[in-house]
Amino acid sequence: MPTTTEITFRYATREDLPSIVALLADDEKGKTREEFTDPLPDAYYQAFDAMQSQSTEALPNKYLLAVQDADIVGCLQLTLIAGLSRRGQLRAQIEGVRVSSKVRGQKIGEKLITHSISISKSLGAVLVQFTTDKTRKDAHRFYERLGFEASHEGMKMRLD
Amino acid sequence: MPTTTEITFRYATREDLPSIVALLADDEKGKTREEFTDPLPDAYYQAFDAMQSQSTEALPNKYLLAVQDADIVGCLQLTLIAGLSRRGQLRAQIEGVRVSSKVRGQKIGEKLITHSISISKSLGAVLVQFTTDKTRKDAHRFYERLGFEASHEGMKMRLD
Repeated sequence: MPTTTEITFRYATREDLPSIVALLADDEKGKTREEFTDPLPDAYYQAFDAMQSQSTEALPNKYLLAVQDADIVGCLQLTLIAGLSRRGQLRAQIEGVRVSSKVRGQKIGEKLITHSISISKSLGAVLVQFTTDKTRKDAHRFYERLGFEASHEGMKMRLD
Repeated sequence: MPTTTEITFRYATREDLPSIVALLADDEKGKTREEFTDPLPDAYYQAFDAMQSQSTEALPNKYLLAVQDADIVGCLQLTLIAGLSRRGQLRAQIEGVRVSSKVRGQKIGEKLITHSISISKSLGAVLVQFTTDKTRKDAHRFYERLGFEASHEGMKMRLD
């Protein structure tokens, strides 16, 4: 049994991009959707800069990383979205949740989600939301155990 | 049969907030979720200012309005979200879609969604997404006719 060491959390910097894209690609759907090359396609750096440009301290749009022994072992995108509906409620939105296949079974996904919820609460969000592909049945059970409810249809349209 | 006049579209200003909240409350779910009083609760103004603070020209988080004869007859929140997944794809997200019950049958909802898609394309988005409550079956058929696919579960957790 491998020894487990402490997990810490921090926001991603530009230098973390290759590790993040490696994680995004380490997934049944991600392996066809991502392009993990060396060097990385410029599109990822441009997207990171665009995320930075729309981030403020109060309303971040950032990647949150789970780090173990200086390795990035998990990530998710956390976006705080101000809006008018429900009496002007602030929402937190999660996207791109990944845990390295090398560290499964250590509840790193759960710890990452829980940490993102703590951040969201501290920023004043009263709702956390995300969409998950209907074919990811195991993921749905995982999220329902954490307290999420599949109350909505997640509708998408590609524009290209 | 009432005569119909041209629909124009523009982004909301702070002065439009009472009309927008009236629309948000003019809805089966919205009537219990919103607080349409005169004056409006400060929370709506604070939320509008927060939306402004995270909007850039390239990546807006704004309410788009449908206007007919100087009346605001429809609205939706349009948020452009930069992210790393799917090769750094830019997403557009819709929320709070409402059409005044006084102008139903003029395809104003369809025109509003179509206009928001045009804006999203022009800003470089390659995906438009939103979540819709599973009980809103008529809305699902409407969105599927427009080309959206209910491919995802929309998961939510309240934090209060």
